[in-house]
Amino acid sequence: MASTANQIIHCKAAVSWEAGKPLVIEEVVVAPPQAMEVRIKILYTALCHTDVYFWEAKGQSPLFPRIFGHEAGGIVESVGEGVTELKPGDHVLPIFTGECRACAHCKSEQSNMCELLRINTERGVMIEDGKSRFSIKGQPIYHFLGTSTFSEYTVVHSGCVAKINPSAPLDTVFVLSCGFCTGFGATVNVAKPPKGSTVAVFGLGAVGLAVSIPYLSLIFSLSDSCYAHVHDYDNNPHYVASMRTRLLKGQAKKFGVTEFVNPKDHNKPVQEVLVEMTNGGVDRSIECTGNVQAMISAFESVHDVYIYFWLGVAVLVGVPSKDDVFKTHPLNFLTERTLKGTFYGNFKPRTDIPLVVEKYMNKEIELEKFITHSVPFSEINTAFDLMLKGEGIRCLIRMKE
Amino acid sequence: MASTANQIIHCKAAVSWEAGKPLVIEEVVVAPPQAMEVRIKILYTALCHTDVYFWEAKGQSPLFPRIFGHEAGGIVESVGEGVTELKPGDHVLPIFTGECRACAHCKSEQSNMCELLRINTERGVMIEDGKSRFSIKGQPIYHFLGTSTFSEYTVVHSGCVAKINPSAPLDTVFVLSCGFCTGFGATVNVAKPPKGSTVAVFGLGAVGLAVSIPYLSLIFSLSDSCYAHVHDYDNNPHYVASMRTRLLKGQAKKFGVTEFVNPKDHNKPVQEVLVEMTNGGVDRSIECTGNVQAMISAFESVHDVYIYFWLGVAVLVGVPSKDDVFKTHPLNFLTERTLKGTFYGNFKPRTDIPLVVEKYMNKEIELEKFITHSVPFSEINTAFDLMLKGEGIRCLIRMKE
Ligand SMILES: NC(=O)c1ccc[n+]([C@@H]2O[C@H](COP(=O)([O-])OP(=O)(O)OC[C@H]3O[C@@H](n4cnc5c(N)ncnc54)[C@H](O)[C@@H]3O)[C@@H](O)[C@H]2O)c1
Ligand SMILES: NC(=O)c1ccc[n+]([C@@H]2O[C@H](COP(=O)([O-])OP(=O)(O)OC[C@H]3O[C@@H](n4cnc5c(N)ncnc54)[C@H](O)[C@@H]3O)[C@@H](O)[C@H]2O)c1
Ligand SMILES: [Zn+2]
Ligand SMILES: [Zn+2]
Ligand SMILES: [Zn+2]
Ligand SMILES: [Zn+2]
Repeated sequence: MASTANQIIHCKAAVSWEAGKPLVIEEVVVAPPQAMEVRIKILYTALCHTDVYFWEAKGQSPLFPRIFGHEAGGIVESVGEGVTELKPGDHVLPIFTGECRACAHCKSEQSNMCELLRINTERGVMIEDGKSRFSIKGQPIYHFLGTSTFSEYTVVHSGCVAKINPSAPLDTVFVLSCGFCTGFGATVNVAKPPKGSTVAVFGLGAVGLAVSIPYLSLIFSLSDSCYAHVHDYDNNPHYVASMRTRLLKGQAKKFGVTEFVNPKDHNKPVQEVLVEMTNGGVDRSIECTGNVQAMISAFESVHDVYIYFWLGVAVLVGVPSKDDVFKTHPLNFLTERTLKGTFYGNFKPRTDIPLVVEKYMNKEIELEKFITHSVPFSEINTAFDLMLKGEGIRCLIRMKE
Repeated sequence: MASTANQIIHCKAAVSWEAGKPLVIEEVVVAPPQAMEVRIKILYTALCHTDVYFWEAKGQSPLFPRIFGHEAGGIVESVGEGVTELKPGDHVLPIFTGECRACAHCKSEQSNMCELLRINTERGVMIEDGKSRFSIKGQPIYHFLGTSTFSEYTVVHSGCVAKINPSAPLDTVFVLSCGFCTGFGATVNVAKPPKGSTVAVFGLGAVGLAVSIPYLSLIFSLSDSCYAHVHDYDNNPHYVASMRTRLLKGQAKKFGVTEFVNPKDHNKPVQEVLVEMTNGGVDRSIECTGNVQAMISAFESVHDVYIYFWLGVAVLVGVPSKDDVFKTHPLNFLTERTLKGTFYGNFKPRTDIPLVVEKYMNKEIELEKFITHSVPFSEINTAFDLMLKGEGIRCLIRMKE
């Protein structure tokens, strides 16, 4: 096959023309990568709830027409000027938050908030020239999160690309590109629950279920007294019912879930229920819903009182609406609760993600169970339906029919 | 002098009969200490802003008549049943939050929120029997914070008493019993600013000024690039002016203050001013005002961006009103800011305070400069006036005329 480097590519992309309306598969033109950029042939992608929020544009700034998608796996097609660490043929995961390796955040061990390439949900263009690489008949189509993976080809800043082991199955490890690493990292990098601690997870999507993984495989395995409270809430009884069934069947255990609380089963705030269940509050709570009320509940579920001997820490992961306000009584902080938050589980995309892929290759983490559905690219709107209904976890979208 | 153990004591106390009204020096009866209690002869005491809030009873539950006071030094007069670690003649500091040494919090290295003896601002009686040890003609007078040091004699739970080096001058080390240790501990135990970091302190009372101490003596001393932003705000231009004068005269340097920001000098939120001054935000901010708006500003002053390589941490110390609500956008957490709070700087009263007294004895910390005024007990209302006007720092109240 002749090289397409330096040329425009015509390919299919799922374009979102209007908030909340089904995507339309269109033929788009993808410009060649500019300085420090990479053009990637996407093979597999999936929907994360962050795509849905910005597609719905309720409580988020609308920017249309746009190509969504940020959880994906693919192969480098060509690279722009100055890109030395990536070459055509490399297997890669595009990541919505980048790592320039030059700024103070990149140099810090504690932070992944790269000053140049940190997540920016408002920007719909490339940093290099403030322009889009996508167009239809000359009309630019906006990017999303610098990744726009709902396209057969996309252009991404090279600092937002993790180069991974080429023998890793892209139709599985793509889930590391957002959902899994976000929840997993929120636990191991940020909440850092001591062995044997109690953990409440709010929201049982891919992100929330990835939180519970470490309890089975890394942290909880050696302790009897440990248990993870997992808590979910849904507008569709469907999903709750299916999670509950799984739990009853003992299947939820494979996610580390040992108890299940549905706020709708109680006539008091769920934080009070959790505080009672745990005789004072959980040691860690991790919010993976994006609902500001759940954020407040997660914080207030954490103990200021005993259980084991650790201070309570809550971690916010869900993406809030623009006008959301987190509200709590300041005394909840004085009584030694800590509140933090994280993007992408504080993982550095280029440095850390290849190593997480190796964890999968070494069977230290399990990813298959996160992928409950699969559709061809032409049926991408089915993935939206599934997420809105709360059915399943991740729906794999296959770019090759 | 004949022993007064097991007998009631008649002595003078400053009784607060009504919210916001001057205290009245009355003759009170002080009952003997019950099981696990200690009766202390108070020699020196001072006013902390927490006394003022509950005396004003604006935004706090009123409970009158009451004997306020919790920052003090004295000598054990007698001990109740079961008290083995204290005996008459011991030099002690009563502390508003206790250490039972049996609960999980006491056993934890990280926490000082003793389950039995943690700060309780609503309780006006002793834990042992739910009664007060103070009365006037049979009418019980409520305790405050379990200490009530505005009395020549008071009864305190033995878990709330730090036994200290008898050669330490009580008219100086009394300030360790609340103000100094609260600010100092908020820094060294909770905020833990790395060497060379920038710190904003909100509120320049004893608590806030104790925050800045460590930067001079422990952390900042070896670094050129360090500076503490100190920020104050007052309804009385008096105090602001005097702090500013001190700063100009170079005297504020003895508190580690190197810059001074008055929100009233700016027509935008002070957090924006601090973020601009520091090119992105401070590394640590410590709120010592009790004003909920200052709490929010303190949190939002902390960087999510660069300066040195640490994540931003804000620590709340001020005592909020009952109905205050801390409000901020949840994204401020996702971008890696951490929010914590502390009572008494996370110091454990019995275990840690004797060691802080030794620090003073070894000249590692300076306390004299916190004591700017001195009055006899009969003029205790002057101390209220001074604090309300924001004049000086601590006003020593001498129980012996
Ligand atoms: N911080 C980050 O870096 C990052 C990265 C990825 C996703 N996210 C966010 O994490 C969240 C989860 O993403 P996902 O893809 O797993 O979504 P998902 O839709 O698959 O799962 C979310 C789950 O939360 C549940 N939920 C909703 N409101 C709730 C409430 N009030 N209480 C309890 N449960 C509730 C839903 O029923 C659903 O099961 C979203 O807000 C997403 O935007 C953040
Ligand atoms: N958490 C604890 O364990 C603990 C212990 C002691 C005191 N406190 C609290 O700490 C706070 C300080 O106590 P203190 O005795 O040093 O009081 P103080 O009155 O001596 O000093 C407080 C200072 O804060 C300033 N201030 C008030 N509002 C402000 C604002 N919006 N912005 C900036 N500055 C402002 C005042 O001008 C004053 O200089 C009080 O809220 C007190 O109740 C808490
Ligand atoms: Zn995502
Ligand atoms: Zn960077
Ligand atoms: Zn105090
Ligand atoms: Zn205790």
